[in-house]
Amino acid sequence: MRFDHAGVATDDAEGLAFLYEDLLGCSIAHEERFEELKIIFLELENGYFELLEPQDDGTIARYLEEHGDGLHHIALETDDIEQALETADSIGVECIDTEPRQGAWGHRVAFLHPRSTGGVLIEFVEH
Amino acid sequence: MRFDHAGVATDDAEGLAFLYEDLLGCSIAHEERFEELKIIFLELENGYFELLEPQDDGTIARYLEEHGDGLHHIALETDDIEQALETADSIGVECIDTEPRQGAWGHRVAFLHPRSTGGVLIEFVEH
Repeated sequence: MRFDHAGVATDDAEGLAFLYEDLLGCSIAHEERFEELKIIFLELENGYFELLEPQDDGTIARYLEEHGDGLHHIALETDDIEQALETADSIGVECIDTEPRQGAWGHRVAFLHPRSTGGVLIEFVEH
Repeated sequence: MRFDHAGVATDDAEGLAFLYEDLLGCSIAHEERFEELKIIFLELENGYFELLEPQDDGTIARYLEEHGDGLHHIALETDDIEQALETADSIGVECIDTEPRQGAWGHRVAFLHPRSTGGVLIEFVEH
């Protein structure tokens, strides 16, 4: 498993991208807009920040209301997401996605439930 | 800047380490016990999880009371922590540590205030 990205919930993805570019010397690697989310990926040397700005009143908007802006999830890259989900299931970890689904940037993703993982929302991602 | 580790606040660092070992195939790279904290580093291919269990009623204990267990901070590795802090200061980012200090594993560290960084507690670390 490799660190892939840290997901950050924010009200202003562009503003935060500008700040992180200046602060961390990283640059925008990818932008995407879904009906419910605007997403900006900022490139570190060995991974990314994924800035998530809600465009509707869905899960990220609710997260912002409840928790404020900040760290939302950690994504770990695997070469075999099905195997990673099988392992999780076999040791009793609750999977939000029991099958991989299409995520941002065309990657296959699946989330584990934070109540099974020490409060950490973990995303598996296969590029 | 490189991803170094994701810091996780937990009531049970050993229990979470066992779970992540099984779930993620990572293993314990380093353990440390301070007066106020028990710390376990779990090794990913390109970084670490840092599991933080309070041993007193200090900042991590208060974090757990307020937020519950989960993601606490993101640490980014830099070759020049003084320069990183100067850059932060020059663009108006509030630094919790204005000078590097000794952190876990003998590394030099400095934290930035999350109210300046989109709600994300960012740690700079120089190995």
